[in-house]
Amino acid sequence: MAVVLPFDPAADIAAEPSLEGIVSLVRSDMDRVNALILSRTGSDVTMIPEVATHLISSGGKRLRPMLTLATADLSGYRGEGDIKLAASVEFMHTATLLHDDVVDDSEMRRGKLAARMLWGNEASVLVGDFLLGQAFRMMIEVGSMQALDILSSAAVVIAEGEVAQLAAAKNTATSEDEYLAVIRGKTAELFAAACEVGPVLGNRPKTEQAACRSYGMNLGIAFQLIDDALDYGGSGAKLGKNVGDDFREGKITLPVLLAFRRGTEEERSFWRRCLEQGEVGEGDLEHAMELLAAHQSIAATVERARHYGAIAKDALGLFPDGPAKQALLDTVEFCISRAR
Amino acid sequence: MAVVLPFDPAADIAAEPSLEGIVSLVRSDMDRVNALILSRTGSDVTMIPEVATHLISSGGKRLRPMLTLATADLSGYRGEGDIKLAASVEFMHTATLLHDDVVDDSEMRRGKLAARMLWGNEASVLVGDFLLGQAFRMMIEVGSMQALDILSSAAVVIAEGEVAQLAAAKNTATSEDEYLAVIRGKTAELFAAACEVGPVLGNRPKTEQAACRSYGMNLGIAFQLIDDALDYGGSGAKLGKNVGDDFREGKITLPVLLAFRRGTEEERSFWRRCLEQGEVGEGDLEHAMELLAAHQSIAATVERARHYGAIAKDALGLFPDGPAKQALLDTVEFCISRAR
Repeated sequence: MAVVLPFDPAADIAAEPSLEGIVSLVRSDMDRVNALILSRTGSDVTMIPEVATHLISSGGKRLRPMLTLATADLSGYRGEGDIKLAASVEFMHTATLLHDDVVDDSEMRRGKLAARMLWGNEASVLVGDFLLGQAFRMMIEVGSMQALDILSSAAVVIAEGEVAQLAAAKNTATSEDEYLAVIRGKTAELFAAACEVGPVLGNRPKTEQAACRSYGMNLGIAFQLIDDALDYGGSGAKLGKNVGDDFREGKITLPVLLAFRRGTEEERSFWRRCLEQGEVGEGDLEHAMELLAAHQSIAATVERARHYGAIAKDALGLFPDGPAKQALLDTVEFCISRAR
Repeated sequence: MAVVLPFDPAADIAAEPSLEGIVSLVRSDMDRVNALILSRTGSDVTMIPEVATHLISSGGKRLRPMLTLATADLSGYRGEGDIKLAASVEFMHTATLLHDDVVDDSEMRRGKLAARMLWGNEASVLVGDFLLGQAFRMMIEVGSMQALDILSSAAVVIAEGEVAQLAAAKNTATSEDEYLAVIRGKTAELFAAACEVGPVLGNRPKTEQAACRSYGMNLGIAFQLIDDALDYGGSGAKLGKNVGDDFREGKITLPVLLAFRRGTEEERSFWRRCLEQGEVGEGDLEHAMELLAAHQSIAATVERARHYGAIAKDALGLFPDGPAKQALLDTVEFCISRAR
């Protein structure tokens, strides 16, 4: 007798993608990463733990260190090195955020006042330097020259990407490819490095290292594109930042690039005035959102993100099924679903 | 028949101490360091070499990389690693200067406009990050875990020292010991690390590593104290910076700390108004210089520097005489003689 399985075509869509898979997978290791993060922000100079903790404890998802732990797990690594590398990755990320806030004159970060608003630009620059130094110290302690090489190269590429963004800033005619190069540098490179060091620790073959790197790179691109989309459409509560921040700061992101290219000459003047000349007045954000909607720029940005997400998932194809692989696949879905 | 040697009691004083000894000692290696510095500031992002070259080619003496080369020579090291470590040390120094200018709101650096005045704070922060990343890349290429450990620890200590200075800033009642702790961090630590990696590369015993570290640390303290003195009394042309910069920026250095402690209550009010409240008016710099002279604060600062210089020289006592040792001894004399 045939068993009739109930079939619900809406089930896949209804199941809210979440980080639950990766969170459970790495829970005990993340406790150790968090303890290490706390201990390595310690200093007799009390301003250092104050500034560092303000940002580190402000509710980031700690996605990047979880990726290091999960790819180490995927690679069958059973040592201790992934804890320190994961904490290093989070410190590199935090240092970048501190410096970015200074570079962008940002007032808010993760729904709280940016550290620079409370302690000044000076402290943000220097505590960032401190955390970067501590990140290198921890990497060195792990003793893998290859992991050191990957993460230090990432630090260079990230800084280079940020300078490129600075040099290219305020140009609404930036091409989509140029924009992609920027976000590969400023966001995706650290995701890639965080994922690549997992199989490196596990002494896995080059193909697996490259696969994890590719997973991280493409996940990172998708993650940033969704961030860009959320800045114009997501709920502020989700991201802890206000809708329209990028617009007010004159940041030219993919939704804008697409609306600019798809728009009329009159619309292009509007974008140039707001983003290149920085003349933003009453009602301009609303008008910008109307234009983005009219040209389906947000939807297109999410579609682009899905494309990179698909590449990320396929990159893991050669790994055997199991909880680590499933957690990494779910992470991609979660990152993209944030834009719903 | 006895030969009567001409004796000129003024000869020692008349012979102007110079860097000629260390410059000749490391000349061919420094050519390679300079070429490496140029090649590693290269980037497709043209703003990076522009900003980096502006500062790097602005006539710094490159004392720190020369120290790495000279201590490697002293240690009988014949490999290639000292070239890359020397370039790393100079990059760490340059990154610190770029970030310091942002932290201090400085307008000038080495007699030229500070990079931040030409390219903005943003570029100074990010190009500093880039150079720090490149410094780590070069260290890693050398492959000495111990050298990596020394230089990355230095990066942490430097950042920590800068934050400590920030937290302690604007306090005229800072004690001399507290001030020394600050300059150990912000200046002397990098000198110490630059000198320690020489014998590390040469696989010399711990005692020699510690001796070179001590030489560098004490030379660094002396160097900074002379800088402090020069800011109130040296000729502007020598340092490429204007007399009184520290005063105008409200920096509290040893000459001021001494004049403050040696002065009357009325004088202390003057220092507090100028340096803590930052109310500097016409004639205040001149009055400050008078007070420094009246309390012999500059002379005392130079005396303190001589003390650390003497420790630095004694630290090399166990090394056999030779051109490398002599060059390092002369370097101490040169650094102190700048305040003449």
